[in-house]
Amino acid sequence: LFMDTIYSPFTSNVDRQIKSVGESALIREIRAWLGPVCPDGAEGIGDDCAVFPLANTSGFGLTTVDGVGYGSHFDDKVPPEGVGRKLMGRNVSDIASMGGRPVRAVLSLWLAPDTSVDWLRSMYEGVASMAREYSIAVVGGDVARANAGVCIVDLCLQGIAERPLLRQQCKVGDGVWVTGELGGSFLGKHYQFTPRVAEGLWLANQPGVGSMIDISDGIAKDLRALVGDHEILMSDVPISDAAHKLSLTSGKSPEYHAWHDGEDFELAFTTDAQMDCSAFLENWNAVFETKLTYLGKINQAGGFQVIGHDSRFVELESGYEHF
Amino acid sequence: LFMDTIYSPFTSNVDRQIKSVGESALIREIRAWLGPVCPDGAEGIGDDCAVFPLANTSGFGLTTVDGVGYGSHFDDKVPPEGVGRKLMGRNVSDIASMGGRPVRAVLSLWLAPDTSVDWLRSMYEGVASMAREYSIAVVGGDVARANAGVCIVDLCLQGIAERPLLRQQCKVGDGVWVTGELGGSFLGKHYQFTPRVAEGLWLANQPGVGSMIDISDGIAKDLRALVGDHEILMSDVPISDAAHKLSLTSGKSPEYHAWHDGEDFELAFTTDAQMDCSAFLENWNAVFETKLTYLGKINQAGGFQVIGHDSRFVELESGYEHF
Repeated sequence: LFMDTIYSPFTSNVDRQIKSVGESALIREIRAWLGPVCPDGAEGIGDDCAVFPLANTSGFGLTTVDGVGYGSHFDDKVPPEGVGRKLMGRNVSDIASMGGRPVRAVLSLWLAPDTSVDWLRSMYEGVASMAREYSIAVVGGDVARANAGVCIVDLCLQGIAERPLLRQQCKVGDGVWVTGELGGSFLGKHYQFTPRVAEGLWLANQPGVGSMIDISDGIAKDLRALVGDHEILMSDVPISDAAHKLSLTSGKSPEYHAWHDGEDFELAFTTDAQMDCSAFLENWNAVFETKLTYLGKINQAGGFQVIGHDSRFVELESGYEHF
Repeated sequence: LFMDTIYSPFTSNVDRQIKSVGESALIREIRAWLGPVCPDGAEGIGDDCAVFPLANTSGFGLTTVDGVGYGSHFDDKVPPEGVGRKLMGRNVSDIASMGGRPVRAVLSLWLAPDTSVDWLRSMYEGVASMAREYSIAVVGGDVARANAGVCIVDLCLQGIAERPLLRQQCKVGDGVWVTGELGGSFLGKHYQFTPRVAEGLWLANQPGVGSMIDISDGIAKDLRALVGDHEILMSDVPISDAAHKLSLTSGKSPEYHAWHDGEDFELAFTTDAQMDCSAFLENWNAVFETKLTYLGKINQAGGFQVIGHDSRFVELESGYEHF
């Protein structure tokens, strides 16, 4: 008998529902759960806005917002720490994909009155653990009542970058690369992934790197966002063990999973045609254990298209559509 | 017969549902609806993060997040432009209450698949109209699918302040003031209010002004947040016409509405004991048409309490609790 653990954000134990705790006490608890991740005084929770000094900053500011919702991004099978880490991680991955460093976050929670305080504490522990790993301050937020069955948390993350790497800055002849291995995130990676911040910062320091994106909707869709209306001559994508494993029961090929699954949170980027690819890969491997794969090169402009190593068009589905 | 107009965010007309339009087309439409409020290129919508230069900034950064939800903050009777203006306005009011100036915003939308594209366009027109009035750039966002009946929009707003006015910076002897008139926002002001940005900036420039808050949960609750564990010797609060009108049918006094209704989005602040109050009021009236009322003074520390002009304790309810 296969026993699943159930981690519902809702509870029938009235004493452990947020409506019994009340808003003010809940905010005090949240501050305690966050611990040193939430700065004291005006830089943290408790005033109308979070306040932070701007002097001596240079480069560029980055800002992004992404959330997780019960029934959309997680369900009763995902442990609440994983929900919190996913919430923080998907925003950190957006900052990483610009070649930036995350700095501070605010959260907005929409919670049904029977939301479990214990589930919420564990979710915040997930947020705080990733905040510690990436030196992010959680500086404020908002809590609002939602209808039954609703548990939505938005996170707005700010960061900085010396040289932000945008999408669609590539030219014909550029190389296309991807970190890690793709596919099968449904088996667990979607809430247990490592945003590629160190890798992104390193890449932004390499003058030959031109544009970057993170793989969240499936590389089939995200490559198009990266290269715009260009054709790519391409080898196969790196396929994860999870993609192979999932293909045993899904009726789809490991390649299909690698191209389309999404939630990989790896980085895809382009490099100048003049780049010495083997020296670049050697430099990478001297710094990172993360795998790096050369996917191919930008062949021509005039429409997005992927040509496989056997010279055939690669038929791609459009990737994850959010509606 | 009284005819109410109904502005549901949901539609049974399949062609006008967001699931028929699809995510990519919807994001293109959103950019068009926002018009010049959404900057071009990396500073606006379309990449993993919004990017903005940090050089030559001084003072302090401010960040806040607040949202509106169907069933919580609006219903079928609020026109969608009003929902958008309320969404932007309540965040602008948070920036105003720090003595700051709003600069840029990101939105996060959680929408049921049958959400009406037309409702959404009008909501965005409300966001854009207030963004234009306050010179705010809408620089990005996220759109996610939610369950049936859910329509939630979060907005994270960033601003700057030369001298941020925090809560709870008052001392015994300080004066307490409030802008505008309070109560009865339910009759319309809750989605048709003017955030007090100019007033807040002016106040932050007056050395005698010490702390500030905006009135969103009812002054009974928000005064406590402003002055902390201090007792206030106080006159009556300024009562709006709407509070008088609402009392005709609510069974509650106009005073009760002014103290407890909330959603006024006025500013309450404290001034030094040494302040010349009549000169201060004269200076104010030379600049603003907005009414300013001296409420009273901080009498002693040791516990929040309000003493009325008849020397009796003012019995206050705890104000709006969000659960």
